[in-house]
Amino acid sequence: MSEYPSILLENAVNQFSSLPGLGRKTALRLVLHLLRQPQSDVEAFADSLTRLKHEVHYCRICHNISDTEVCPICQSTRRDRQTVCVVENIQDVMSVEKTGQYNGLYHVLGGIISPMDGIGPKDIEIDSLVARIVPERIKEVILALPTTMEGDTTNFYIYRRLAPTGVKVSQIARGMAIGNELEYTDEITLGRSILNRTEFKE
Amino acid sequence: MSEYPSILLENAVNQFSSLPGLGRKTALRLVLHLLRQPQSDVEAFADSLTRLKHEVHYCRICHNISDTEVCPICQSTRRDRQTVCVVENIQDVMSVEKTGQYNGLYHVLGGIISPMDGIGPKDIEIDSLVARIVPERIKEVILALPTTMEGDTTNFYIYRRLAPTGVKVSQIARGMAIGNELEYTDEITLGRSILNRTEFKE
Repeated sequence: MSEYPSILLENAVNQFSSLPGLGRKTALRLVLHLLRQPQSDVEAFADSLTRLKHEVHYCRICHNISDTEVCPICQSTRRDRQTVCVVENIQDVMSVEKTGQYNGLYHVLGGIISPMDGIGPKDIEIDSLVARIVPERIKEVILALPTTMEGDTTNFYIYRRLAPTGVKVSQIARGMAIGNELEYTDEITLGRSILNRTEFKE
Repeated sequence: MSEYPSILLENAVNQFSSLPGLGRKTALRLVLHLLRQPQSDVEAFADSLTRLKHEVHYCRICHNISDTEVCPICQSTRRDRQTVCVVENIQDVMSVEKTGQYNGLYHVLGGIISPMDGIGPKDIEIDSLVARIVPERIKEVILALPTTMEGDTTNFYIYRRLAPTGVKVSQIARGMAIGNELEYTDEITLGRSILNRTEFKE
């Protein structure tokens, strides 16, 4: 006999435990929770997944996830259409939006250059970024990639690719996180924040 | 605009984050993972949930989860049909089965008596346990409930309810966990394991 008293139960546990970060015990707990919910709730759960996969779009301009062919941000007339913020993935768009400090457009790369993982420039949306600059009359590209070696490599590659277009390229500031103590800040970050010091204004 | 770029995405995240122990960030990560999988995989995931809820049974004898009206354990002729092990839930059946030390039948209460949570004896499968003893000619009931106040209360209640049937009632041993040091065992457990000492045999 299998570890599970029911094949249907085992199938559902297998599905949940195939998700990243979920072990078999957690998967079992989640499945048994769902089993205690009304049938309509479980159907709504299943339906939300099927519909998501069937009906969701990736914006053909910025490659963010969207319910429409062109996402609301790319369609908006109230945003600064001359600035593009380049991010690694969809979550990063949400993170930047939450700051409330940015009102331009986005470009989602769908990854960053990582030779260790076999991801090269052609595997992510760099060509489509370069192709946007002239027709959309973009004035500034803000690189908002992770502050890792892979992020730096990708920043540098994009910078080189954009150079012929003459667009201004900037990157998000690196320095001490707000609310931190110098004593507990790592020396590379602290060193950077001294080098990149900004003029004090009242 | 909502925090999420897509309503379909938001729905799926809402569904996942309604599960116990999953926050919205984890839910988003799981949904975006599913979105990267082939359509057939996502459909299999959704289907496993719908089928589970539609088709799964609870064994009408022991109330364990089952693909059939009577579960394989209750149907088995190779098990000791005169002993019933009483457990709180389905996971506990799996835990006892994994030990390989038990070959009798089960009875799943579906909860334990907990006045704080408003769960009384009528809310769990105690009547149906009592009703099994005589017709099934049960000789021994093993109480394998949590070693908590609620577990103790439930043990005592079941013991009183079973008394008129004359069935033997036992409970699983309490004492030091295997591999533990006395120094790091709590005093209640250690005290119990001294009181409940067993004869040393070569």
